Amino acid sequence: MRVAVLEEPGSFVVEERDKPAPDPDEVVVEIGKVGICGSDVHYYEHGRIGDYVVESPLVLGHESAGEVVSVGENAEGDFDFGDRVTLEPGVPCRRCDHCKRGEYNLCPDVTFMATPPDDGAFAEFVAWPADFTYRLPDSVSTREGALCEPLSVGIHAARRGEVGVGDSVLVTGCGPIGLLAMEAANAAGAAEVFVSDVVPEKLALAEERGADATIDVREDDLGESVSDLTDGEGVDVVIEASGADPAIRTTIDAVRRGGTVVLIGLAQDAEIPLDTSEIIDNELDLRGSFRYRNTYPAAVQLLADGAVDVAGIVDFEMELPDVGEAFERAKESETVKGMLSVSR
Amino acid sequence: MRVAVLEEPGSFVVEERDKPAPDPDEVVVEIGKVGICGSDVHYYEHGRIGDYVVESPLVLGHESAGEVVSVGENAEGDFDFGDRVTLEPGVPCRRCDHCKRGEYNLCPDVTFMATPPDDGAFAEFVAWPADFTYRLPDSVSTREGALCEPLSVGIHAARRGEVGVGDSVLVTGCGPIGLLAMEAANAAGAAEVFVSDVVPEKLALAEERGADATIDVREDDLGESVSDLTDGEGVDVVIEASGADPAIRTTIDAVRRGGTVVLIGLAQDAEIPLDTSEIIDNELDLRGSFRYRNTYPAAVQLLADGAVDVAGIVDFEMELPDVGEAFERAKESETVKGMLSVSR
Amino acid sequence: MRVAVLEEPGSFVVEERDKPAPDPDEVVVEIGKVGICGSDVHYYEHGRIGDYVVESPLVLGHESAGEVVSVGENAEGDFDFGDRVTLEPGVPCRRCDHCKRGEYNLCPDVTFMATPPDDGAFAEFVAWPADFTYRLPDSVSTREGALCEPLSVGIHAARRGEVGVGDSVLVTGCGPIGLLAMEAANAAGAAEVFVSDVVPEKLALAEERGADATIDVREDDLGESVSDLTDGEGVDVVIEASGADPAIRTTIDAVRRGGTVVLIGLAQDAEIPLDTSEIIDNELDLRGSFRYRNTYPAAVQLLADGAVDVAGIVDFEMELPDVGEAFERAKESETVKGMLSVSR
Amino acid sequence: MRVAVLEEPGSFVVEERDKPAPDPDEVVVEIGKVGICGSDVHYYEHGRIGDYVVESPLVLGHESAGEVVSVGENAEGDFDFGDRVTLEPGVPCRRCDHCKRGEYNLCPDVTFMATPPDDGAFAEFVAWPADFTYRLPDSVSTREGALCEPLSVGIHAARRGEVGVGDSVLVTGCGPIGLLAMEAANAAGAAEVFVSDVVPEKLALAEERGADATIDVREDDLGESVSDLTDGEGVDVVIEASGADPAIRTTIDAVRRGGTVVLIGLAQDAEIPLDTSEIIDNELDLRGSFRYRNTYPAAVQLLADGAVDVAGIVDFEMELPDVGEAFERAKESETVKGMLSVSR
Repeated sequence: MRVAVLEEPGSFVVEERDKPAPDPDEVVVEIGKVGICGSDVHYYEHGRIGDYVVESPLVLGHESAGEVVSVGENAEGDFDFGDRVTLEPGVPCRRCDHCKRGEYNLCPDVTFMATPPDDGAFAEFVAWPADFTYRLPDSVSTREGALCEPLSVGIHAARRGEVGVGDSVLVTGCGPIGLLAMEAANAAGAAEVFVSDVVPEKLALAEERGADATIDVREDDLGESVSDLTDGEGVDVVIEASGADPAIRTTIDAVRRGGTVVLIGLAQDAEIPLDTSEIIDNELDLRGSFRYRNTYPAAVQLLADGAVDVAGIVDFEMELPDVGEAFERAKESETVKGMLSVSR
Repeated sequence: MRVAVLEEPGSFVVEERDKPAPDPDEVVVEIGKVGICGSDVHYYEHGRIGDYVVESPLVLGHESAGEVVSVGENAEGDFDFGDRVTLEPGVPCRRCDHCKRGEYNLCPDVTFMATPPDDGAFAEFVAWPADFTYRLPDSVSTREGALCEPLSVGIHAARRGEVGVGDSVLVTGCGPIGLLAMEAANAAGAAEVFVSDVVPEKLALAEERGADATIDVREDDLGESVSDLTDGEGVDVVIEASGADPAIRTTIDAVRRGGTVVLIGLAQDAEIPLDTSEIIDNELDLRGSFRYRNTYPAAVQLLADGAVDVAGIVDFEMELPDVGEAFERAKESETVKGMLSVSR
Repeated sequence: MRVAVLEEPGSFVVEERDKPAPDPDEVVVEIGKVGICGSDVHYYEHGRIGDYVVESPLVLGHESAGEVVSVGENAEGDFDFGDRVTLEPGVPCRRCDHCKRGEYNLCPDVTFMATPPDDGAFAEFVAWPADFTYRLPDSVSTREGALCEPLSVGIHAARRGEVGVGDSVLVTGCGPIGLLAMEAANAAGAAEVFVSDVVPEKLALAEERGADATIDVREDDLGESVSDLTDGEGVDVVIEASGADPAIRTTIDAVRRGGTVVLIGLAQDAEIPLDTSEIIDNELDLRGSFRYRNTYPAAVQLLADGAVDVAGIVDFEMELPDVGEAFERAKESETVKGMLSVSR
Repeated sequence: MRVAVLEEPGSFVVEERDKPAPDPDEVVVEIGKVGICGSDVHYYEHGRIGDYVVESPLVLGHESAGEVVSVGENAEGDFDFGDRVTLEPGVPCRRCDHCKRGEYNLCPDVTFMATPPDDGAFAEFVAWPADFTYRLPDSVSTREGALCEPLSVGIHAARRGEVGVGDSVLVTGCGPIGLLAMEAANAAGAAEVFVSDVVPEKLALAEERGADATIDVREDDLGESVSDLTDGEGVDVVIEASGADPAIRTTIDAVRRGGTVVLIGLAQDAEIPLDTSEIIDNELDLRGSFRYRNTYPAAVQLLADGAVDVAGIVDFEMELPDVGEAFERAKESETVKGMLSVSR
């Protein structure tokens, strides 16, 4: 089978590897579509993300969907040849305290696609545990299925923020995660969702997709704008998806007393100055949100329902052999989401 | 001003009373529309609901909206003459442990419109605490505003059930409360909402309004039907809005292991046999849901957003002097919701 | 090794079996002490509990602790020869939705000691998954370690009831589960714990162990007594551990408005009549509590801290070959807890 | 009556004022004991705390208890002459969204004793709303009653951290708030509580009072020490009660993955650099904790139970006329808590 391998920063090689066979608890999936994530691009450009270093050739890609072609013996009955499926890319140890508590996204021994040293899904076939594989109904395309992954990040963030019916929400950053967090917040009943960014095209896209107001933070102060939009109260929940230092700092001014700030966007700087006296006086909650857990069934359901639109954030799609060109385009600041088509 | 008074069971009199003046913390509202609730009809027919007995002439009606005509001195700045508003009909003592904990719907000293001995809103003018009065935006009609009350019952039930993104929900009973609980569950992100009833017209209405499946329990077994719809799992949440003995008993069979049953529908019988061993073995939650708290802002927002449709459940509207005829029609089993138009 | 096998109701045989070897993820434990649970006695007397039928010889016992004698290769580093440990008797599938959500006690594919067809711990050696095996510190005896199991039932019930600092709690039923639920409630910060039973000796034991008041329900009305003890308010939380029909019904009268009733005691009757109108009007929560999850580390900690006393509920201890005599004595109504000493 | 008034920073005057009469919803309390809080000392030294500026003579003191001498007409039946009581010093507006949601500590219109411009309790008599006045049982002394206030801060912090049975907790800062947060965490079931400070005497006091380990952060690294104490895991909950910049920053290293940091200690610096990437990667919760709500009944119960020791943190007690001397002594770094005796 063909596999796209990151040999070194900036350089992909498409090579042939043996097709995998399923373990008893696994299925083998012929990969159809794989989204290109910002983390893939980061490994491509820099060869590392924090402590995760690409030390040997790595297969990238962790937003994937495809078709079952082989079923391990313990998974028979659960899956059939030809089932279209999406793959949850992180498989935890199932044994540690985090796993037992249901917070398996915090398992320290997780295997996560495209995170060194674990290979990802830019490959024609992937063998994957059946219980982290989810069937797609006819109403959900394979392309949409692949995007259950970033949608899951959004759903988990909305859950961490306990977004509920009637809430007002601010999403800072209109990249794919911000846009899908906005969708997730709307699905959870948010009455108003405001967004901010520094790229007018991204704000325009957010507006098209239903943002109730957009704030261009190159021109307007975030805290003041939110204050104006909320009669001086602040929003119930902020979802910070930009990773930009000033946005992170300002979340504390934009949220109402007793409200919640969810952090997803990783900052460049090691430490961000935060006003802890405001956190105390206003009894705020700041909550980190890391990947997701128990979101895939909900993500598939939301797509089947037509409640969210993920396909609309895809700017372009290319074939697997064009992976290098796809990544060059994905690097551009106006790109929201690129996608690779893998199966022949 | 004109007021419709229930003199004795079955008999309304429209009489003149003095127009109220506002206390410092109150506004006076010229009532526009008032919904007719099942409890109003019950007082009309039987003169009592459980321990609440109509012992002297009572003004019914607690689903009301109208226009501010007078503002108490402490409420100046919050309301202006001409503001269209909806009234939350229960005002708690603000001092007991329940009030302090935010569960003010459980305050034992609540004043609740149209619950003996407190008068309701079938009156041209009502003086009401400003903080239990909520402004309606232009996009929400006065008729819709009046229906914030039953919508609030639905929102509170969905909150009690912790309905979230991707959940499957069964609503038993398609009266106004069941229908609006369905809307609230959808607004909270439910992926699938099934409904059951014994009246085909009501099931048809539920289907029109977006139910994913309907179950006519005169023909089909509720537990089996839900099992078929959920691959044998049961739904995440049941909202019981029928008050029918067999429905209440069967909720336990329809909910998944670890799921939640919310009870809103009051049963005729004092006690309903429930399978407590199933409650234990499947670790179920059975939660009563009483009226609502902190729902009005969310209800107004959902209406402003167009996220729910309340006006569509109104079968007819009559003028205040025709209150007797309106109640006769409201008694009929195929009526979902009647409404009175009060202001001249 | 010696094993005590229930051949048929009322008849144990002590026989020799092969000593188990550990799978890679397992340890082998030389069993020291095993508590005798009410469910063991029920299988001994009736050969079944509900749908669980003893169809072939079964090894009973699931409250066990002992000493590690062999360590599977994947568990090396986690356990050493000679470590004293307690065994959590239910091992879930680790793959279903319940397991992923952390509610592994609801896993439908759990292996649970001494529940047909899975053998239990009345055996000299048991091979057990390392991650459901917990080391005991020096300050916790092996006897206490065995009783982490019923203590876990109590901890889980207190968690299901969200017992917190300053709460008032009623525990109905002073068997081992009731007594340990009382300890767990106290450990969680309950300010007052009242208990009820029909056996004066058990009430006396509860009082010795710190109950703030005892109610003999043969003489006094439960609801009235609790009302007297709480200025007419009712308790914040009821933990129903008797399984007695009248106790279950009365919990609803004993709990305060907005309070919670936790059900653990399995009733004899299929269905218990419950006042659902009270559940609604008072917005009560009725929550089933099934076994436990994520409790063993806390149970071991509470014992190490001396915060709870489990050893004091043991009435007698016998050797494994005397299992028949031990069960005859465990059947008697005044027995709280019997124990078998297994290792030679 | 005599009242101690802060005329200007550093200068108290004891003067005569009229004894208050109760409003209908109030009681008048003859004040017995009043604790001296760090905020009182701060106003005494600096004349302001942040935006709160002492612009006219102010009566300090908000940790008070005494005896009812007069009862407003609406409070008759709830209180009698001679009842010993403790006063909750913050009375909210009862009308805003925060009050209705039960988070009345966030009410922007709260009246709070000894916070400009509201007078406090260094007075022989105070008129106070009956529903923020709590009766003390015989087993709780008036001195202990006064300390329900700082104990409430600790209880609220433990609640914000959701400290539960078996949890490990780190409290940074062993002033009165840290010590009482430690007591509250223990009462909530914490299995291990570690404390840190820079003053050896305070660490020694914490150890006497039951800390499981003490960390002198002048000598040892906080993160490493906690890592050693927890097998490298970190604690479940950190309660930050020092307000020291390095302590606040280090909380993030001391808490386990998925754990919670509660902030109570106000920092000197406007902004503290925090590692938001760690907050995200480890999915931490940082929660501000502001004063308290719904804690007084629990505080009184814990004291009645003997579950916590508040009297032991009092270093000295002086008479009202010696208020100046008392504040000079309270300023010293080794003082934990001073107290004034008010009634003659």
